[in-house]
Amino acid sequence: MSSFTVTYQLTLSDGEAVDEKIGNLCLEQSVELPAEVLDKRIRDQVVGRPRKKKQVGDHAYEVTIAWPLADVGSDISQFLNLLYGNISLKPGIKITKVDWSSLAGNLFKGPRVGIEGVRRRYNITARPLSATALKPLGCSSKALAELAFQFAAGGIDLIKDDHGLANQMYAPFEERVRACVGAVRKAAQRTGRRSYYFPNITADAGEIESRYRLAEESGADGVLLSPHIAGLTVMHRLARMEGELPIIAHPAFAGSLTMDESQGFAPDFLYGQLWRALGADFVIYPNTGGRFSFTLPQCRSINKAARRSDAPFKASLPMPGGGIKVEHVSRWMNEYGADTCFLIGGSLYRYTGGIEAAAKIFATRIQKG
Amino acid sequence: MSSFTVTYQLTLSDGEAVDEKIGNLCLEQSVELPAEVLDKRIRDQVVGRPRKKKQVGDHAYEVTIAWPLADVGSDISQFLNLLYGNISLKPGIKITKVDWSSLAGNLFKGPRVGIEGVRRRYNITARPLSATALKPLGCSSKALAELAFQFAAGGIDLIKDDHGLANQMYAPFEERVRACVGAVRKAAQRTGRRSYYFPNITADAGEIESRYRLAEESGADGVLLSPHIAGLTVMHRLARMEGELPIIAHPAFAGSLTMDESQGFAPDFLYGQLWRALGADFVIYPNTGGRFSFTLPQCRSINKAARRSDAPFKASLPMPGGGIKVEHVSRWMNEYGADTCFLIGGSLYRYTGGIEAAAKIFATRIQKG
Repeated sequence: MSSFTVTYQLTLSDGEAVDEKIGNLCLEQSVELPAEVLDKRIRDQVVGRPRKKKQVGDHAYEVTIAWPLADVGSDISQFLNLLYGNISLKPGIKITKVDWSSLAGNLFKGPRVGIEGVRRRYNITARPLSATALKPLGCSSKALAELAFQFAAGGIDLIKDDHGLANQMYAPFEERVRACVGAVRKAAQRTGRRSYYFPNITADAGEIESRYRLAEESGADGVLLSPHIAGLTVMHRLARMEGELPIIAHPAFAGSLTMDESQGFAPDFLYGQLWRALGADFVIYPNTGGRFSFTLPQCRSINKAARRSDAPFKASLPMPGGGIKVEHVSRWMNEYGADTCFLIGGSLYRYTGGIEAAAKIFATRIQKG
Repeated sequence: MSSFTVTYQLTLSDGEAVDEKIGNLCLEQSVELPAEVLDKRIRDQVVGRPRKKKQVGDHAYEVTIAWPLADVGSDISQFLNLLYGNISLKPGIKITKVDWSSLAGNLFKGPRVGIEGVRRRYNITARPLSATALKPLGCSSKALAELAFQFAAGGIDLIKDDHGLANQMYAPFEERVRACVGAVRKAAQRTGRRSYYFPNITADAGEIESRYRLAEESGADGVLLSPHIAGLTVMHRLARMEGELPIIAHPAFAGSLTMDESQGFAPDFLYGQLWRALGADFVIYPNTGGRFSFTLPQCRSINKAARRSDAPFKASLPMPGGGIKVEHVSRWMNEYGADTCFLIGGSLYRYTGGIEAAAKIFATRIQKG
């Protein structure tokens, strides 16, 4: 019987027995009935099966369960339900790993472009990438395009919309995209060096694909998406659309999944494994030491998971952001290595010498290594 | 300036000052830049504004912030981002309330059918409703239809797919829906009393609307959706589709949002306010005392929020489920009142006298009150 495995960290509360917790998990996420009412075929072929169990703490176990592929069928949405449907409502269950090998190809396709594709497209070898965000919300399309021009003139590789720029009156989607595409190209004529613009296409159901197509027709270089707002399976669908725009995934609305030590998803599972399987070419995550709260080892694990070559998908480019300062870029480059896209927003806006000069400092530090 | 308010419970960690936390929230969820780089117009018209602050514990405050409607524009997705984008990544912020009055009509439409509409459609006045689920995964369409027949013959009002039934080979979507619709109608011919069948249409992006239409064409009476898997804005879109099928919303994948005392969403905010605004006619939530973990006061608050008549939407029908036993139904009816749809799955399957007899006991208890 074809199956795939999921690894959990189980934390027992008072009076809980590990084997009972495992047994309940196997039933809850498949048949959602007590074992005694099931016939033998269903018990043998439909219910999850424990494969490994290892005690990792006083009340903590690492447990691997094999799930029949037939339980998922043809829908990624049903994979997500089997992965984290009802157990999202229960304490003491954290998902740390999926063995994607038997899910790749028939269900998940992973990133379309990936790290190597990004390097080829942008002709950037052996160095990290620089990225920034157009903001704030409230600016006109013209003002945002002027910012894009200055960032591009300063030499930053990727320029993305702030994830709060949607279709507001301040700067309607189509007008904004056309203006920013034009600005980035104008800067390239001046400098001889191209930057790449990624508009935010996070939108309501039924609108996302048309914004994707508008982005493509307008000459944008990729798109930004908040998959936990748009819908996780939307990202996978976009990664297969005509147009072939690389996708930057943003963690808005995803935080609660990784905030609890004993519940939810390990950060490297969410950003490095699940988002990669779902097709993110770039995975934005909150870097340690900034306004958000991951630890350095957690950030390293995200980077590793996103890039690891034994996974059955193209690699995703880790994109740490949220409070990185330009003056610390060299430290982070040493820490995280070349296959990283550094996202700096706020600290460039603070630089008193102006946006273009700030961008130039950032871009130069990245280019020189 | 038109605005809407969001109320937060803020929990301070060591060294945090409440006004600084509020100020950061106002910036983070709008402009995502420090105040000193903003021009006056943006500071005045784009950034969130504190309205009320009340200390509610040693380190806890209840805080209300007004947000400009213009920051949201025309997208519910951008509302969700402003509500809980980056702050989902930060500790000590819990959302307890939104004043929906200025969001209703122009952005959110709420349930299409609602409690009164459900009562009119099903001709059920002044008593609670009974509901159950077809399971387990692994059964054929024929076996599930036979179950549907027995539940309907026993007199249960609503019969929904288990939320794990998608489009598996065991029981492909279209075949299953046709078989179950047929079974429920056959039972009605025998008993003279109709039950209502809700197939699960949770699917990948691009598939959900076609499953909705297939459900409608096949004669299904409503649909089941897991909005946190399908995408939250998908539910709102479905609630406006032709076909007018009532929607049962399921909490799969949503659990982490309400598991933490100081972070995420209050349960009544998620199930009773947000889902209602997004168009859920029925809101399934994990009842207290079963396999899941809400307290009785939390469940009462969900019921109250889903039904309250001063909200600008039709009321949603609370649907407590997850471990309710038939023998305790009378207690729960007294506790929760008539405007409740009781969902009992597992304990009916356990009854040794058979499904139809178990269904009859449940239905009779509900009908007699």
